[in-house]
Amino acid sequence: MPATPKEFLDFVDNNADAFIKKLSDAVSIKSVSGDASYRSEVFKMSDWISQQFKDVGVEIQQVDLGKHIMDGQELQLPKAVLGRLGNDPNKKTVLVYGHFDVQPANLSDGWNTDPFTLTVQPNGQLVGRGSSDDKGPVLGWLNTLQYHCDNKKELPVNFRCCFEGMEENGSEGLDELVERESKPGGWFDGVDCVCISDNYWLNTRTPVLTYGLRGLAYYKLNVTGPARDLHSGVFGRTVHEPMTDLIRLMSTLVDVNGKILIPGVDDMVMTADVEERKLYDVLDYSISDVEASAGAPIALSSDKVEVLMGRMRMPSLSLHGIEGAFYGPGAKTVIPAKVSGKFSIRLVPPQTPENVLPLVKAHVESEFAKLGSKNKFELEELHGGKPWVTDINHWNFQAAKAATKASISSIQRIASIYTFSAHQAIYNKEPDMTREGGSIPVTLTFAEALGVNVLLLPMGRGDDGAHSTNEKLDRSNYIEGTKLLGTYLYEVGAINTK
Amino acid sequence: MPATPKEFLDFVDNNADAFIKKLSDAVSIKSVSGDASYRSEVFKMSDWISQQFKDVGVEIQQVDLGKHIMDGQELQLPKAVLGRLGNDPNKKTVLVYGHFDVQPANLSDGWNTDPFTLTVQPNGQLVGRGSSDDKGPVLGWLNTLQYHCDNKKELPVNFRCCFEGMEENGSEGLDELVERESKPGGWFDGVDCVCISDNYWLNTRTPVLTYGLRGLAYYKLNVTGPARDLHSGVFGRTVHEPMTDLIRLMSTLVDVNGKILIPGVDDMVMTADVEERKLYDVLDYSISDVEASAGAPIALSSDKVEVLMGRMRMPSLSLHGIEGAFYGPGAKTVIPAKVSGKFSIRLVPPQTPENVLPLVKAHVESEFAKLGSKNKFELEELHGGKPWVTDINHWNFQAAKAATKASISSIQRIASIYTFSAHQAIYNKEPDMTREGGSIPVTLTFAEALGVNVLLLPMGRGDDGAHSTNEKLDRSNYIEGTKLLGTYLYEVGAINTK
Ligand SMILES: [Zn+2]
Ligand SMILES: [Zn+2]
Repeated sequence: MPATPKEFLDFVDNNADAFIKKLSDAVSIKSVSGDASYRSEVFKMSDWISQQFKDVGVEIQQVDLGKHIMDGQELQLPKAVLGRLGNDPNKKTVLVYGHFDVQPANLSDGWNTDPFTLTVQPNGQLVGRGSSDDKGPVLGWLNTLQYHCDNKKELPVNFRCCFEGMEENGSEGLDELVERESKPGGWFDGVDCVCISDNYWLNTRTPVLTYGLRGLAYYKLNVTGPARDLHSGVFGRTVHEPMTDLIRLMSTLVDVNGKILIPGVDDMVMTADVEERKLYDVLDYSISDVEASAGAPIALSSDKVEVLMGRMRMPSLSLHGIEGAFYGPGAKTVIPAKVSGKFSIRLVPPQTPENVLPLVKAHVESEFAKLGSKNKFELEELHGGKPWVTDINHWNFQAAKAATKASISSIQRIASIYTFSAHQAIYNKEPDMTREGGSIPVTLTFAEALGVNVLLLPMGRGDDGAHSTNEKLDRSNYIEGTKLLGTYLYEVGAINTK
Repeated sequence: MPATPKEFLDFVDNNADAFIKKLSDAVSIKSVSGDASYRSEVFKMSDWISQQFKDVGVEIQQVDLGKHIMDGQELQLPKAVLGRLGNDPNKKTVLVYGHFDVQPANLSDGWNTDPFTLTVQPNGQLVGRGSSDDKGPVLGWLNTLQYHCDNKKELPVNFRCCFEGMEENGSEGLDELVERESKPGGWFDGVDCVCISDNYWLNTRTPVLTYGLRGLAYYKLNVTGPARDLHSGVFGRTVHEPMTDLIRLMSTLVDVNGKILIPGVDDMVMTADVEERKLYDVLDYSISDVEASAGAPIALSSDKVEVLMGRMRMPSLSLHGIEGAFYGPGAKTVIPAKVSGKFSIRLVPPQTPENVLPLVKAHVESEFAKLGSKNKFELEELHGGKPWVTDINHWNFQAAKAATKASISSIQRIASIYTFSAHQAIYNKEPDMTREGGSIPVTLTFAEALGVNVLLLPMGRGDDGAHSTNEKLDRSNYIEGTKLLGTYLYEVGAINTK
């Protein structure tokens, strides 16, 4: 007999302080994956997470992912943590993903408090590195299982988990692991759906479900001229200057309003019809939201739908900078010898790094040829990833939607399925259905390896500052978010598709 | 009775090793003016130079130039060294300028030998920091005076010198000093001409006299958008990106062939007529020279005259880089919040920073307005200096020309004036008359403060690498250059204008 939602929800409320204490323990482990000197802390975090999930009855396997090279040294990768609990063929099998490594953080970067000491602010913010990205969400799953373990309650689904310690540093070794374990007999064999809690609400008010991510193609435009940097007094107006060529080339890529000028790139994406525009119109969002988060009145449009579509369903091209040119303060009269312009395109379906590359190559080569410079030019593709969009009408999303809404009536509906009485709402709000402008590459890995629906179900708010100083998770997001993740499992369990 | 050129020239040959030893002593004092930790060495160099010139009979005054702020600390400026020898109203009074500070140098920068140990290479190169810029030329004057002192010979001119220790760091305090001492009763009162030996031959073969310098106007284009750097995934195609605006703005400044696109700037300079083109046609220079020194076949033209005019008598505009954008290796998907594009224009008469600024301002403001961006834009002028061109028909240049040529017949002519017989040639070559593409601001200071002709009479070759690693001065340039400076004084003394 599955557990009762009411008892679970009460348990979460009653144990809120203990859950925060546990988050504090997790934050105190400095599991920075991008800094070799912290690598032992990432190992420690892998062990800590494993022990926590073992303690609530999950069978755990720590998987050695081998070695990698970072900052010129060979390092052992932190072990991924795979877990399973339940194998009932009458239940759905849910795979959850999260990561236990964090971004670097130093008090001197501008933190108001020690980044590795979780600080509870009077306004309810839990401040600390990893609080929101992604230790809080991982503990949300743990807290849910805690209830079932402590109260000897059966889970409404078969539970699988995959937690990694290299997400903030390229997820090295994860793709191979996921592909291997997705095969028959593998750890993920029989998984019916995936839930990833590692992104954010669009704002600070309304929960979201996320069904799309943009891909990325990153390029370098290399222009090489003289054998070494030259002095502009001696060589100005005697030789072709690489910076002149590069700046002119970079100016042909995108206009001031974000329109991509590389022929064919914008055209690959269908224009949104009235129906599709409605998807963006209903979102809880306004121009003041984007301007507040950018910190300046610089939105490309005063039409909220245009701005949201620009972020979610249109490609974008950003010029990031120039390697090799003068970048310091002051006035250096150098003619740089070799300069590399960096830009990237955020991709949306049907774009892929593979089908966009020929368009980019044709454009920049033709534009460089037009210049008639004697300098040398070469396009370099640095890395890329495909975009991802999934079906929001899938039962996985319906379950998450019902759980997020968790109005009195939805709790009542669940309660009636599990023959208990309703008692409280979680968010009592229809979630916004969003697409992220950025990438979470593991989403695509799971979608392709398992061939099942993947849902992004974030816990934190849009202002959590995941990779910034003073990262926080609101107490209510942590506690209600724990309820949300647990209730989502009930909703999945209650859906009849098997 | 003035000294004999023959005896002087013989003396220089006979004392070459001693002169090289003295240069070695000078190079061993690490008088780096741009690094606070070497400041005491610059003081030491001021004292050393003072003592050397006192030892050859020059009356010396070390002038306190006060303090300045560098790298956040208040530092005493190195004392300038003023010297005088002779006050005969029947002789011309020559003021020579040089500097005894040097550029930074570390073995680890790529020097083949310790930069502060003068190393005599088998090919005759004297390698060491300051060998060519500018300790060698300063010692050229010292060596000349040494002869007159040792042999109790009268100088053919009244000698004045001004040596400073801050040239490589903005010549702080020098302008005020020169203006003060140029007034009646000042140290430079009565000076008839100035000779500065602090630049280079156009190539490695032919001595030059330099009669022009380009000026400089350095600008920053500041574009400010969001309150902080943004993530291109989240904000790409939702806000106006400062980099997009800046790159477009920078692309409107200069074309790939060096033509300045700011309306009016190129137009200020008269087109060269046939007569003027001849001045460049006669110079010992070829396209392969510019391509050899640039290290690549990237000359803007295959016409030597066009290339030389581009460097010497046309303004040039170089794009140096961008402050605030991503400049490292790798692929960072940042939208930089505030970016500053750096560019400078080398100026030629009648251009000045003052008369070019309104053209630049009008252009960039109009181009930015055309963009229609909501970001903020501001033009900032960092620093500037006027160009300088002087009259090559002045007796100061004629004297230097005769001295440089120093063919048997010219030595004979001098010898006949001084009633001695000719004996040897120095370079035995007509010098090239050049204009430098860069700036030597003190030239203009002397020209304006004294109202007399200023001559640039370089000692070193075009490949000396003044501000680079492995700076050198060829032994022959040091020794023949010493003869040249001394013979120049004889030539000035022999000219009858008083
Ligand atoms: Zn994350
Ligand atoms: Zn110098």
